[in-house]
Amino acid sequence: MKVLIVSAHPDPRSLTNALRDVAVEQLRADGHEVQVSDLYAMNWKAAHDRDDFPQMGSDEAMHLPFASMNAMADRAFSEDIIAEQDKALWADALILAFPLWWFSVPAILKGWIDRVWMAGVGYQISGERYGAGRMAGKRAMVMVMVGGGESYFSDRGVNGPIEDLLFPINHGMLYYPGYSVLPPYILHKTDRMEQERFDEAAEQVRERMRTLFTIAPIPYRPQAEDYTERKFELKDEFLADAPAGFARHIRPQA
Amino acid sequence: MKVLIVSAHPDPRSLTNALRDVAVEQLRADGHEVQVSDLYAMNWKAAHDRDDFPQMGSDEAMHLPFASMNAMADRAFSEDIIAEQDKALWADALILAFPLWWFSVPAILKGWIDRVWMAGVGYQISGERYGAGRMAGKRAMVMVMVGGGESYFSDRGVNGPIEDLLFPINHGMLYYPGYSVLPPYILHKTDRMEQERFDEAAEQVRERMRTLFTIAPIPYRPQAEDYTERKFELKDEFLADAPAGFARHIRPQA
Repeated sequence: MKVLIVSAHPDPRSLTNALRDVAVEQLRADGHEVQVSDLYAMNWKAAHDRDDFPQMGSDEAMHLPFASMNAMADRAFSEDIIAEQDKALWADALILAFPLWWFSVPAILKGWIDRVWMAGVGYQISGERYGAGRMAGKRAMVMVMVGGGESYFSDRGVNGPIEDLLFPINHGMLYYPGYSVLPPYILHKTDRMEQERFDEAAEQVRERMRTLFTIAPIPYRPQAEDYTERKFELKDEFLADAPAGFARHIRPQA
Repeated sequence: MKVLIVSAHPDPRSLTNALRDVAVEQLRADGHEVQVSDLYAMNWKAAHDRDDFPQMGSDEAMHLPFASMNAMADRAFSEDIIAEQDKALWADALILAFPLWWFSVPAILKGWIDRVWMAGVGYQISGERYGAGRMAGKRAMVMVMVGGGESYFSDRGVNGPIEDLLFPINHGMLYYPGYSVLPPYILHKTDRMEQERFDEAAEQVRERMRTLFTIAPIPYRPQAEDYTERKFELKDEFLADAPAGFARHIRPQA
């Protein structure tokens, strides 16, 4: 199979990059083809702006969805965007590897999402999304390095549950374009990593790579099945048993 | 009083910028001093990297919190970072004005948080945070332009509740450094804005500016009071009545 790993750490010797390389090595050993987009090494442009649309008139209003839809038919996007779209479309699985900075992805990785997920790739004019869309049939997962300990991110931890903090990424940036999203790989207390803990983490990453195409994805609810048509609200029949919060958008498992 | 508005839209004629200007005008009419950081107009650098630490050795490991703590005493940060820190420290209130892109802030604004919230400003070595910290006593609020309709972001909407999607920003990026965080100003269905709806929105923004220093903030739970000391978990005495999800971190109101 084919895998794209997008990584986002400024230091080539960082833990993020070290575990990314462990992932690449295991995937290749298992016979997969791998491409890596190291956003810092590529000097990836983070800010989405007018230059992303080479055919846009200089006095044309720049409203992200409309600009994107107007450019879609001709793929009139800047070359760096097209190159990344092609990698994502080529890959059967996408992995985002990053440190959690201020409870989200680093800016440079947000800029990859903002710019690469243009109309026709990240979303469809037809409105297919959340379980449908261009990326349907592909898998995605995040590998996240978290400075704080597990308890700070537990269901009573002061930062909020890590699963909920990752919801805007897993559900909003990955499931929305159609990916089947795998449970995240999360490593805590990454401010200090002794060799033994690194070796343990590396083995966990290898295991996640061996099972990349076999483990069950998070059973998010498909928009076309579980939500009403116009308002996109969870159907009455599912509401009674559904928990509060983001967990509502995951199908209960038998 | 003094107010800093940080805005993040690439088009000078955007709705984000138009409502930001309405806010500036009202604040000045009410006698406040206002500074504006228009991140696109400033060509703000989004990606946090080695250049942010002018004194860092070229072979020194770049781990965000340690690099930041090492540079803190001398404020050995790049000039653009220091300028923004000074504005934020000068202001009694901070307003972030942005379009919701992929369920979070645009990359350029994430880059403002990633880079400006260095040690000594965004967080303290002493560990004071969430209701304490350098920004304690100051107010913050977000003004968010949302393409989708309200129902998509309701407590049963397919995107998840807007309050929860904003939690990593309001709680994680603003309350953490110490700000009292005000209820967000959220405008939906911004893909098409007729003059009448714009006029209504402008009046809402003016009202929010008139009450910027008087309305009650979101009653997030202070870390020092409501959480245990080492594990930073919600104390037992508050857990029984607390709802699930992020709402757990808001004190119930009488």
